[in-house]
Amino acid sequence: MTDSVRAIAWTDDGLRLLDQRLLPGRTDWIHCADAESVAGAIRSMVVRGAPAIGISAAYGVALAARLRYRESPADWRAPFGRDLALLREARPTAVNLEWAVARMDTLAQALEGDPFEALLAEARRIHDEDVAANRRMGEIGSALIGERCDVLTHCNAGALATGGYGTALGVIRSAHAAGKVGVVYADETRPWLQGARLTAWELVHDGIPTRLLADSAASYAMQQGRIGWVIVGADRIAANGDVVNKIGTYSLAVNARHHGVGFMVAAPTSTVDLGMPDGASTPIELRDPGELLDCAERRVAAEGADAWNPVFDVTPAALVDAIVTERGAVTRPDTDGIARMMGHGGGGSTAGKS
Amino acid sequence: MTDSVRAIAWTDDGLRLLDQRLLPGRTDWIHCADAESVAGAIRSMVVRGAPAIGISAAYGVALAARLRYRESPADWRAPFGRDLALLREARPTAVNLEWAVARMDTLAQALEGDPFEALLAEARRIHDEDVAANRRMGEIGSALIGERCDVLTHCNAGALATGGYGTALGVIRSAHAAGKVGVVYADETRPWLQGARLTAWELVHDGIPTRLLADSAASYAMQQGRIGWVIVGADRIAANGDVVNKIGTYSLAVNARHHGVGFMVAAPTSTVDLGMPDGASTPIELRDPGELLDCAERRVAAEGADAWNPVFDVTPAALVDAIVTERGAVTRPDTDGIARMMGHGGGGSTAGKS
Repeated sequence: MTDSVRAIAWTDDGLRLLDQRLLPGRTDWIHCADAESVAGAIRSMVVRGAPAIGISAAYGVALAARLRYRESPADWRAPFGRDLALLREARPTAVNLEWAVARMDTLAQALEGDPFEALLAEARRIHDEDVAANRRMGEIGSALIGERCDVLTHCNAGALATGGYGTALGVIRSAHAAGKVGVVYADETRPWLQGARLTAWELVHDGIPTRLLADSAASYAMQQGRIGWVIVGADRIAANGDVVNKIGTYSLAVNARHHGVGFMVAAPTSTVDLGMPDGASTPIELRDPGELLDCAERRVAAEGADAWNPVFDVTPAALVDAIVTERGAVTRPDTDGIARMMGHGGGGSTAGKS
Repeated sequence: MTDSVRAIAWTDDGLRLLDQRLLPGRTDWIHCADAESVAGAIRSMVVRGAPAIGISAAYGVALAARLRYRESPADWRAPFGRDLALLREARPTAVNLEWAVARMDTLAQALEGDPFEALLAEARRIHDEDVAANRRMGEIGSALIGERCDVLTHCNAGALATGGYGTALGVIRSAHAAGKVGVVYADETRPWLQGARLTAWELVHDGIPTRLLADSAASYAMQQGRIGWVIVGADRIAANGDVVNKIGTYSLAVNARHHGVGFMVAAPTSTVDLGMPDGASTPIELRDPGELLDCAERRVAAEGADAWNPVFDVTPAALVDAIVTERGAVTRPDTDGIARMMGHGGGGSTAGKS
């Protein structure tokens, strides 16, 4: 198995982020030396994907600690706290961002003296754990796929969206390696075209047969019997198993259920928000209408037209067949199943049974 | 009520077609003096939309007759027949194309001497009848909308897609004029962006509040209770009421049913194909993968990526709440309902009851 791309790299002088806005045409890297530039990179989608945002923010916290401690060893905590708030607020929907900043903050509060090395080590741990979680999810999710089939994915829940390897694409990579996946149908994923720009790029790189399709064609592909499983990532999973993910995920879930196609969500436990009882209470980011009024940086819509641009939606747990985390798979997720999986190390329904 | 745009115009020296590929940025007209150029305009989507294709082809038949009769008054029918075949094959899915060419051909076969004036008059009749049908559908469809609501439409089934006024947009125009429609949510409609480029342009022109959205966001809009009716056009309606229309229509129908949102199809009877027992037997056009690999004429997908680009899909009649034609509305369409509507002038279920 080829090593998948890494979009987040720590270097001696800071964080390097692959600028995902320019892919696949250009592979430029952006350098961040403080929390503000990391927050800016998250806001402007240089880096995107819930786990990748969390990892980047963790490194951002380490950068903040280094800078603020150097500025004032005696009084670094107040500006450091403002940096954390900046990171936390960079984007509203992915809970991994809050989770990573909170985990870093908890450690920072326990530290004395120069906090940098310990925080950097923690950020690296978050990064490494994410990659390991992806590999584990790959195995667990792949085991859920019975017969060899073609699958459909939405957005990019791949190496670029994570520390490496991917959540949904991690499952697809593992399943493909196991001979269980033929062709991957990849929704192009308007408005940002993550599928066309990022998922196709990753899968072509790995030599996995990939067919892009218009988001709205997914339903017709299911009707024609082309799709065995829909496999997606998540930006937040509520305590009851509702899944918040890229706009269009919900429509896929409705269609998958209508056609009897399996619907699998792969996400690390850092995406699970037990404080959120259900998906309806999750903040859904609205982005610039220009993302729809323009297409590939050219104005396409009539002057005077308005647009509604929610970039996430909520899929009720009842439409989800399996949630796969690094701790196991929860089939037919509900509050009890999620609690069991989160509470006990190996909890949830056992993988590989459905 | 302002007069809606006309994209098809007859002039003394031939057919003028508004080049819809350039809208809304530019309003250029293409001039067609023979059947070949009309077929080329249909194939390349200078003109698109099932009724507009039919009308254009009808004028194309008149142009063919003029040219071939001038070339050889004694022996014009053979090359004329080849012109008709060329027009008929320009695009496979919209039955209005076959219908219009057949209607013109039937008349041509009955003519003696120079056929041009009679065929031109027939093409004009087809054009005028289409506009009148749209106006009538507007009234009938509007009557189906009970309480004032926001509606969602897909692709462009407007003045640009017809002789003028529009099918789905005709219903929306009439309903808006009657105070029954607030905001129109317009799917941008990948890959060709008919919603962003054409529907938004028409509605902004008419002063009807319009919000573009990603095709995949329609389901979330329904979940949030924003949509009262989904209103679309059709490229072919089978004898059993199955509806062939722009890719993405089927997904909307599945989602509309899931959310209890009304699903209305507006199309003239020239779109009904009684020779086609159901939608599954209808030819579905696959277009160039480049329409997905590129976006607004810029390459967006990774080199090496493939795409699957069906541009129509089939919505089973069971998911359709009402089919509106100029002869009335068929609610809960099936073979009997369609046959009644087609067989008897005022048949089908009476409009305004649901």
